[in-house]
Amino acid sequence: MSPATTNLPGNWQDICATKKRSQLASIPAGWILTTPPPDTRNNVITVPAESGLLTERELEITETTDVDVLLEKLRGAEWSSVEVTRAFYKRAVVAQQVTNCLTEIFVERALKRANELDDILRTTGKPVGPLHGLPISLKDQFTMKGLDTVMGYVAWVGKPAASDCVLVEILYECGAVPFVRTNVPQTLMWGETYNHVFGRTTNPYNRKLTPGGSSGGEGALLAMKGSPLGVGTDIGGSLRIPSAFCGLYTLRPSYERLPYCGAVNALEGQESISSVLGPMANSMSGVKTFTKAIIDAKPWTRDPLVLRKEWSEGGYALEDHGGGTGLCFGMMWDNGVVRPHPPLLRAMEMTKKALEAAGQKVIDWEPHRHLEIYRNAETIFVADGGYDYRAQCDLSGEPLIHTMRPVTDEYERILDEPYVKELVGEPVHRSAYELWQLHKEKRALRKSHLDHWERTVERTGTGRPIDAIISPAVAYTAVPHGLNADSFYTTLCNALDLACTVFPVTFVDPKVDVPRPPHEFHNHEDEAIYKLYSTDLFAGCPVGLQLIGKSQEEEAVIAMTEIVDNALKDARAGSHS
Amino acid sequence: MSPATTNLPGNWQDICATKKRSQLASIPAGWILTTPPPDTRNNVITVPAESGLLTERELEITETTDVDVLLEKLRGAEWSSVEVTRAFYKRAVVAQQVTNCLTEIFVERALKRANELDDILRTTGKPVGPLHGLPISLKDQFTMKGLDTVMGYVAWVGKPAASDCVLVEILYECGAVPFVRTNVPQTLMWGETYNHVFGRTTNPYNRKLTPGGSSGGEGALLAMKGSPLGVGTDIGGSLRIPSAFCGLYTLRPSYERLPYCGAVNALEGQESISSVLGPMANSMSGVKTFTKAIIDAKPWTRDPLVLRKEWSEGGYALEDHGGGTGLCFGMMWDNGVVRPHPPLLRAMEMTKKALEAAGQKVIDWEPHRHLEIYRNAETIFVADGGYDYRAQCDLSGEPLIHTMRPVTDEYERILDEPYVKELVGEPVHRSAYELWQLHKEKRALRKSHLDHWERTVERTGTGRPIDAIISPAVAYTAVPHGLNADSFYTTLCNALDLACTVFPVTFVDPKVDVPRPPHEFHNHEDEAIYKLYSTDLFAGCPVGLQLIGKSQEEEAVIAMTEIVDNALKDARAGSHS
Repeated sequence: MSPATTNLPGNWQDICATKKRSQLASIPAGWILTTPPPDTRNNVITVPAESGLLTERELEITETTDVDVLLEKLRGAEWSSVEVTRAFYKRAVVAQQVTNCLTEIFVERALKRANELDDILRTTGKPVGPLHGLPISLKDQFTMKGLDTVMGYVAWVGKPAASDCVLVEILYECGAVPFVRTNVPQTLMWGETYNHVFGRTTNPYNRKLTPGGSSGGEGALLAMKGSPLGVGTDIGGSLRIPSAFCGLYTLRPSYERLPYCGAVNALEGQESISSVLGPMANSMSGVKTFTKAIIDAKPWTRDPLVLRKEWSEGGYALEDHGGGTGLCFGMMWDNGVVRPHPPLLRAMEMTKKALEAAGQKVIDWEPHRHLEIYRNAETIFVADGGYDYRAQCDLSGEPLIHTMRPVTDEYERILDEPYVKELVGEPVHRSAYELWQLHKEKRALRKSHLDHWERTVERTGTGRPIDAIISPAVAYTAVPHGLNADSFYTTLCNALDLACTVFPVTFVDPKVDVPRPPHEFHNHEDEAIYKLYSTDLFAGCPVGLQLIGKSQEEEAVIAMTEIVDNALKDARAGSHS
Repeated sequence: MSPATTNLPGNWQDICATKKRSQLASIPAGWILTTPPPDTRNNVITVPAESGLLTERELEITETTDVDVLLEKLRGAEWSSVEVTRAFYKRAVVAQQVTNCLTEIFVERALKRANELDDILRTTGKPVGPLHGLPISLKDQFTMKGLDTVMGYVAWVGKPAASDCVLVEILYECGAVPFVRTNVPQTLMWGETYNHVFGRTTNPYNRKLTPGGSSGGEGALLAMKGSPLGVGTDIGGSLRIPSAFCGLYTLRPSYERLPYCGAVNALEGQESISSVLGPMANSMSGVKTFTKAIIDAKPWTRDPLVLRKEWSEGGYALEDHGGGTGLCFGMMWDNGVVRPHPPLLRAMEMTKKALEAAGQKVIDWEPHRHLEIYRNAETIFVADGGYDYRAQCDLSGEPLIHTMRPVTDEYERILDEPYVKELVGEPVHRSAYELWQLHKEKRALRKSHLDHWERTVERTGTGRPIDAIISPAVAYTAVPHGLNADSFYTTLCNALDLACTVFPVTFVDPKVDVPRPPHEFHNHEDEAIYKLYSTDLFAGCPVGLQLIGKSQEEEAVIAMTEIVDNALKDARAGSHS
């Protein structure tokens, strides 16, 4: 059933070619697009509906973006798991053909699983669990028994997993149907999605642009509605960058709230700033339902690192935040490193107005030691001097990828040298003692930032510090391949372990998102990013923002994002106009 | 008010001598023992009562070992904070004169604080917080503004803290009276208590024996009832070893459950296996009340590393453990590395019988990869090749201490080379990448141990895995100075981050704790420890055991320890005989 379960011979290019052929062969013949859009067509969002491959009912199913509605229909046997899974699988395969978002494709296995769930519901009258029948896509890190987990490394081709990772075990017990795996960049440490095995994933809103990364396969797939719910990971923005670039919702939970055990990873054993997994979806209901289902499964009984912390209804009811009325948000208009592009500034203005119209308060957030926090985190990420990456590449002989830019590239370089290189310098293989000194610095920065946040109690008028920060996730919308250099807004949350979400706000509108006059640039990257902006290039791109709460406040952060999302929907519906 | 708030001149020996003189000068003249016991007197437990320095009422106060009773009398103004603080301070100073357990002594400052609390209670009718008026002793790591925190390093003398650590801030807000600080070993990484500045702390049950360490000052002080409640720390057994050797209760909470921020530490920045702080007391009520009070203060609003996890009444009610009836404990009779001495085996037998008489169940625990887990942890602790210790010593020129043995020593060496040296080898300064590989090994071991624990569900008959493990904290009771080489039973919990307690069971009884015939020795250290046992040497020593729960299960572990403690009390009272 697995497309590649044997060790493949040959040099690394041959291994990649064989794997790609095997991937193509795993697509049912009837699901191949008869008239694929020409390469010159940038926006492919409507291809599934136009393809003729999906029935009306399959289109209805896959365009049901509210995960709770899907689950209700599955539980009520109104839609069977087999038909829901087949519908999303077809659409995922269409998405694959226009954005190259998938890795492992295993249609029969998923449909067999869906059929079992339908049988159980039919015979017992009871759903298997809170995710009964729901197809779920997984980033190419979450091992499933018998399938490869390539994670962007040629050397990992042909090494099927001996067992499921803990997340997959739990998903099965919750009644889900893991149905497809999604593409990543080599090393996972890029905010784009390209590797030698599966190639490049493109953004379905504009294929000249990146979907972001490292969970970029999920980003493209979900934007195409080729999955109702995906699972990605995030160590510096890898859930949030693709969610922002693809118009999705996500949650970056705190370290060890959700079970990573058994999933493969880059920099394994690096525990200073942990990668976390989280949901990506077209609705907040998907984010909430996934998170609650996994926590309710008591993952700490299987993953020794997971926090023993039940889902808190009190947290979700915003008990520590005045019950959710009279909230005060801090708006981060500019982090002092890179000023956001005009569409992001407009999205923040829209959000501020929508919240105020809904009776909430918005004050300015004053960034605090943003650059120091970023430098500390980036220095930790390369504390092995890049050894881990090189070692994985050396296993197959594939070269380490040094740029995400395509060979033929119509865009000028915007940056001779990303600012991070100036901040961190050449990667040095540090000693354990030196790493401990970086930890000391990190702890002091976390304390300083926490105190800074707590002191906002003097400015909110609510008797509490600000309830959350709202900021860009990235300073810009999706950019041409190879140009995404910014993780300044996202890495803050990884370094400080702040629970946060991304939510879509609007789309780039050339009529209103006109270039602004130059500001006093913070640094050369800020200047380069300022110059990159053009309404032509970004027209129609989704614009998302980030909501930042405190550590281990997942429930509250989800609830506050729902409040922001509803305020924006009300504002769009004109109820407060 | 601080005994040493200026930088002291001279060589390191002079600095130590000056600091000791300053410490002696900080004792009120009337509190000096007029006829101190001769050095040949081993057991000094009854010295406070015999000293004539404490009034009847002061003896009554200090012999109130139930912290909740003390707090009730303080809240009800039956006893003032000033009289309670003075009583314990006197007794602490007596303890100091016979066991050398203290570092900073600041009588006026503590009494002034107590007086303020009495005033508030008198004028408002309300206690300041849940620890109103209670004197609390602190290990010499918890910084208090204006006081030195020497932590066993000469170089740290004369450097008063600029601010209180987070724990002390919270203790003040809870109404407590931090009143004395207690001795530690140089580097903190010994299970005994000796440094060049303050010298050696002895065990009040037998001054030829060690009180354990590194929280050994607390151990001796609390055994003398010179404090109702102390706070120590634990990275490999430093709360549990002195608690076991001194007949006390303690809790080693999970990483980052209680706020360490602002306290000084050894190996600062080492985050692979975190040191934690916990209470030590003569009663479980002290352990519970302290833990709940600190968590209820929401320490995560001040310490960015502390888990956002409220005190759980459901956890304390043992909701995940069948409500506390029909529990099943796993008894670790032998960890496969060092077999416990006869008094420990008897204590386990007593506990098993007491639990069974109380309707609980006890099965055998099968140790799982104990030695691998120990080796991984010990290797991590010296991943800097010992650089951190040497750097601190080099600042003053004091030598690094290589043995806890007194210069004049009447005991034979029991070990030419502790087994840990054979396991870990000479400390090597490792790279960050090598440290990451140790983390990978650690994670795999934690997963393996968790799965092993979960599989006991097949043997318990309760439908649950075992609820807790009961084991020795150390394979022996207090040993002669310099001979404590064993942290095999304790380090397990640090490496796996298991919440655990220590509780006293009995005392060594030469009549029943007779030597047992030799067993097949696990290793040369097991043999040496076997040979060390003699009823003469250990007669009258407290015997404590360890109760081990799972990560972040502090509430349940406290409740289960109360159940065990009550079962033992009932058994002693003959109610089940």
